Parts: sequence; structure tokens; C-alpha cells
Amino acid sequence: MLSRIDHIGIACHDLDATVEFYQRTYGFTDAHFEVNEEQGVRECMLKINTTGDGAASYIQLITPIRDDSTVAKWLEKNGEGVHHIAFGTDGTDVQEEADGIAGKGVRVLYEQPRRGSMDSRITFLHPKDCHGVLTELVQKAE
Amino acid sequence: MLSRIDHIGIACHDLDATVEFYQRTYGFTDAHFEVNEEQGVRECMLKINTTGDGAASYIQLITPIRDDSTVAKWLEKNGEGVHHIAFGTDGTDVQEEADGIAGKGVRVLYEQPRRGSMDSRITFLHPKDCHGVLTELVQKAE
Repeated sequence: MLSRIDHIGIACHDLDATVEFYQRTYGFTDAHFEVNEEQGVRECMLKINTTGDGAASYIQLITPIRDDSTVAKWLEKNGEGVHHIAFGTDGTDVQEEADGIAGKGVRVLYEQPRRGSMDSRITFLHPKDCHGVLTELVQKAE
Repeated sequence: MLSRIDHIGIACHDLDATVEFYQRTYGFTDAHFEVNEEQGVRECMLKINTTGDGAASYIQLITPIRDDSTVAKWLEKNGEGVHHIAFGTDGTDVQEEADGIAGKGVRVLYEQPRRGSMDSRITFLHPKDCHGVLTELVQKAE
């Protein structure tokens, strides 16, 4: 089952400046940086709180590293802002969750889960099937 | 201090249909409905998970009840999607948090906190000062 808000994905132009803003303004100091070559982004996971399912909720700040990445195109169209939201599984397989949701008529964007932040397994749901919200499903690493 | 993602605010055209989508698709069944006349919205708080600070994280679905509400104008311009994000205090006064943040150069939209969902006290930060994200601060009811 889906048991938490895993993260809110926010696209920005300058990752370091945006991380610094969140740390200085709100005091969210627990930061994990990585590059996801497949997604074409550099990102920072800022841990906000722990969750009742034994995991945590994050703000995920993402910036494109290539002009042809989907986030680069999104930023060009929309400017900085919330790019997607993500729900986490309670340990259940993310593909199982996606299959169950696909069975309810929602398009799943990946045929197979891909690698997300901190070695999670992720997939996305089509925003047009989710009332305008690009929605990610996350199974965190063991 | 700010100790959790309190909620993700999502604007929609048809509240009941959107709540039904979230319940059917993801299994988020814990729903609290209310009308906020001052904000000009009808809304539903869907509880997703508990948080380490003793509170919870929600998806807040909102729909305008008046054509002149700010959410009505936002929907007209943007269509359905994520409208704002909200961080919750760990019990500290929301005005104190807002004052501290204002002191860092971020514009606070309300002079005094207003009533939010479930008798919380809320205020908002200007999205242009927050890298494009309309950001709410929430102090939940005692």
C-alpha cells in the first residue's frame, strides 16, 4: 500500500542557491545530493520529517543537467515551481502498486521501475489521469 | 521550528470527483470536508501518514465556491494541479515563524494568521520569494 508522502519534487534553475534558500529560510539542513544521469537532473533531497511507516518525507529539489531533459523543458514552459508529488510504498513492490493503479485506468509512464533518489525504485503516473498532478510512486531502498 | 510537510494543496474543478479519485486510486480513505468562506473554497483533507512530530501529512483538495476567489482565478489560469505546499510548526506560534522568515527577506502575505483547515492557524509566503512555490505555514489546533 501507499503509506506516506515520500516527497514533493520542485524544479529550480540553480540547485545550490535553492538548497541554500530552503536551509536558511526554514532550517531544513539534512541534505543529500546526487546526479541522476538517466533523468538528466542534479538533485537534493532535504529530509523534512519521519513518517509513521518508518520512512521519511522530503523536499526534492531538481535542476536539469541537459537541455533535452524533460525537467529542462518543463522549466522553460512553467518556470520554477512544484514539478511532481510522490507517494511511498510501505515496502510493497512499486511495480505491483503501479499494476494495481493501471488496472483502475491510470496510465503508468514506465514499463519497468527505474532508479530514483537514494537507490529507490520509482515510476510515474500520467498527470492527465491524475487531475493535473504528475504523480510518482516510490519504493525506498532496503 | 518547522517540523513536517503538513500538506500539499491541490486545486480541482470537482471536489467530490477528485476525492473519489484519490480514495479509489490510492486508498487514502481518511477524509475531512469543510468550507472556508474566507478563502472562498470547499476542501477535503485526506490524511496520508502520521509524522514524527506527533502530527500528520495530508493531501488538501480545494475547489472554489466563488468566481472571485483566488483559487478560482488560479484554476482559470493554470488548470488543475498543485496550488501550494505547507510546512507545519512543532507547536510554535505560526506568527513567530512567519516573523523569523520575514526577517530573512521573504514577504509574508497575511498581517495576522488566519483560520485554516481543522481550526489551524495559517499564513502564506510570497511565491516569488520562494523559488516559484506558494508556501503556507501551519500551526495545528491544540
